[in-house]
Amino acid sequence: MSNLRRLKTIKQLSTAATLCAGSLLISVLPSTASLAEALLPSAASTDPAAIGWMAGTPPVASKLVRHADLSFYQFPQTRWTFSHFQELVPTKRIWRGAGRSSALVNMPDSAIDGIEFVPMNSESTMTWGQMLEATFADAALVLHRGNVVYENYFGATSRETPHISFSVTKSYYGTLAAMLIEEGRLDEDKLVGDYLPELEGSGFGTATVRQILDMTTAIDYSEDYTDPKAHVFDFARAGGIFPKGDYDGPEGFYAYLSTLGKKGEHGKAFSYRSVNTEVLGWLIARVTGSNAVDLMQERIWGRLGAEEDAYILIDTLGTGWAAGGLNATARDHARFGEMMRNNGQWNGEQLLPKSVVDDIRHGGDKDKFAMAGYTTLPGASYRNQWWIHHNANGAFSARGVHGQTIYIDPTAEMVIVRLASHPMAANANYDGVSLPAYQAIADYLSKPR
Amino acid sequence: MSNLRRLKTIKQLSTAATLCAGSLLISVLPSTASLAEALLPSAASTDPAAIGWMAGTPPVASKLVRHADLSFYQFPQTRWTFSHFQELVPTKRIWRGAGRSSALVNMPDSAIDGIEFVPMNSESTMTWGQMLEATFADAALVLHRGNVVYENYFGATSRETPHISFSVTKSYYGTLAAMLIEEGRLDEDKLVGDYLPELEGSGFGTATVRQILDMTTAIDYSEDYTDPKAHVFDFARAGGIFPKGDYDGPEGFYAYLSTLGKKGEHGKAFSYRSVNTEVLGWLIARVTGSNAVDLMQERIWGRLGAEEDAYILIDTLGTGWAAGGLNATARDHARFGEMMRNNGQWNGEQLLPKSVVDDIRHGGDKDKFAMAGYTTLPGASYRNQWWIHHNANGAFSARGVHGQTIYIDPTAEMVIVRLASHPMAANANYDGVSLPAYQAIADYLSKPR
Repeated sequence: MSNLRRLKTIKQLSTAATLCAGSLLISVLPSTASLAEALLPSAASTDPAAIGWMAGTPPVASKLVRHADLSFYQFPQTRWTFSHFQELVPTKRIWRGAGRSSALVNMPDSAIDGIEFVPMNSESTMTWGQMLEATFADAALVLHRGNVVYENYFGATSRETPHISFSVTKSYYGTLAAMLIEEGRLDEDKLVGDYLPELEGSGFGTATVRQILDMTTAIDYSEDYTDPKAHVFDFARAGGIFPKGDYDGPEGFYAYLSTLGKKGEHGKAFSYRSVNTEVLGWLIARVTGSNAVDLMQERIWGRLGAEEDAYILIDTLGTGWAAGGLNATARDHARFGEMMRNNGQWNGEQLLPKSVVDDIRHGGDKDKFAMAGYTTLPGASYRNQWWIHHNANGAFSARGVHGQTIYIDPTAEMVIVRLASHPMAANANYDGVSLPAYQAIADYLSKPR
Repeated sequence: MSNLRRLKTIKQLSTAATLCAGSLLISVLPSTASLAEALLPSAASTDPAAIGWMAGTPPVASKLVRHADLSFYQFPQTRWTFSHFQELVPTKRIWRGAGRSSALVNMPDSAIDGIEFVPMNSESTMTWGQMLEATFADAALVLHRGNVVYENYFGATSRETPHISFSVTKSYYGTLAAMLIEEGRLDEDKLVGDYLPELEGSGFGTATVRQILDMTTAIDYSEDYTDPKAHVFDFARAGGIFPKGDYDGPEGFYAYLSTLGKKGEHGKAFSYRSVNTEVLGWLIARVTGSNAVDLMQERIWGRLGAEEDAYILIDTLGTGWAAGGLNATARDHARFGEMMRNNGQWNGEQLLPKSVVDDIRHGGDKDKFAMAGYTTLPGASYRNQWWIHHNANGAFSARGVHGQTIYIDPTAEMVIVRLASHPMAANANYDGVSLPAYQAIADYLSKPR
């Protein structure tokens, strides 16, 4: 395969698979190590700062990154885009609140970059630093017992830069919904149609809130990224995340949801479909009489002592993109992760009931999850929009395409945040290096020193 | 005139006159008082919070405010838009910097709302509070000797909400340019064409930097808002501030500038044309090798101890809208104003040379200014993108359409910030109530108490 051909393939995979993907590309390629060697340009050769995307006043044509022509979603432009979405599309601010940010004590451990691990399906070792490079990391942060033992930024991302988190957003929404269930404001056994008459005739109408939360609905919704007519593209165009083009369906995330039918039986298997999270956002709005973004500000962001405002991509009607629109700094995601690790406690306040975290950590139905065939996540489950690894350390995580994660390891008292701009969407393509690296840091931090 | 007809007229005036206006509507109506009574809906009846623009998930059609259909620029939707631009168009963040915000000591004086004054061309009195209502204020703040003696918010604007400042933006850019002149990096006597070969063939090419700064260029640029073919609309569409529609000229603020010719002789008269400030932004970018927005962050915003990030509207190529795109909170504008009042000092640091403030306070050419016929600003001048009132108190101000101002009164040791969403663009329409009100507060604060 020529280099040009390879790059084109990657671009197609990237553009196509980005939006909502769980891990549909899992088995496309045999092993992560060979993939990286065979196909991918390096992080160094695609460094957005070195390339100078959007530099110059105005930038020359070859350095432009634009929404209208979809170049914002092509690799390597994405290495700039992912920390500059505010400059490309309308966004809604999520205020950090007044006053000082909460303290994150700095206790850097210079040994971490060199910590070695063996990737899945590999015989040679790799270091933490090499993993970050191989996964096109833009930000990496490790908390141990709440202290910052590792923090590093790359490319176009700095400590203060909100970076797109894609499906990590889902875990924030899932946590909010779980809070509302705990408070008795949302009933997990009720049907979506009971709350949202607008969706009564759609495939979602007869699904329970619980099935939405755990992604066990059976919706006629295609995420086949090789099919230009797949639903996923119309969804993105309905919301304005992609340019509208010749799309002439209903406008806005929610109107689009009502066009989707059912395919199969709800509740039988885990089936990762981002549209479930949009339904969840709508449910949150309906039962609170507000909207999920404002609720996130009130209940989470404004109470974390965040350092920076976050922001969320919105559709043309102002609705936040529940499935993937949150932009935040690594440090602020780390605060959220640390709050989760501490069973909802943060700065002496109980931001959410311990029972909500317990429920997430307990996990979802492993058998239903197994039916989806995630080979890099054996024995895992999905609950309240979180991934539960069910490993020895009881780890659970928020995961977003192109390498975003908040990885929480209660046993190692560790939280890892990685924000990235990997050219391939599905994490499954680089879980083989990421997950063993997280475990190696957990092991290192767990050793008596 | 029927109410409907009145409203339509106001809408036309508003939409048309908004973009860049100095005070072209000055003599449209005989007196502000009669205008307000005859034509305008009240602030209360157009309260955006009460109307509920964009409330609901998703909002019903009648509550939608949209960019594509220009409803974002119609009154009374503007009362929501002016503090929600980030949700409508791409914007660029101006980071507040790390750490705590600088202190603004609260010393509220409850008498201020009731302070009376006599509007221009009027015999009856009005109070400060009534003036704020009559001018559709969204935020009002008075500093005396650096302490907050008055602070109030209305409509859709809160203490933490960045609000569009329109041409107040120009004064920030003018201050930056004056700093660069002081530092010897920009030569006020050089021609625009010397720095920007791209503009050599345009009407700007033979203007000096000083003429750009003081708006004494003679450019063939129409701001006749009753003419749908006026340049001002193409400028807005070139930059994406207005939807592109059938505009097919060059894309971006700067490319548009190069299409403008000369009309008359540079340097003869004050002629308020917003495009001058875009040239200024380009000059700043060229001599710094950076861009004016980043420079504003580095030299001003990031050093003020601002409470909130600001943001600026950008064109489709990422260029900040120098003439009017800055969105910031009243409190952060007040910090900037107080720094100017203190001759460039702030928090023990000299953010800009005293000579820059001296030069602004000394003012521009009054005779050239007088030729423009601003009846509400007799004896005033314009220097470095600031308005100098040349009144007994030596006041100078930043002014933006629809009622934005930072008004600095060195004698009274006072800074006033008002952010507003008046249906009429040109300040001249309500200077008659605004300026006497500012003077009344100055007089009140100057009295021994």
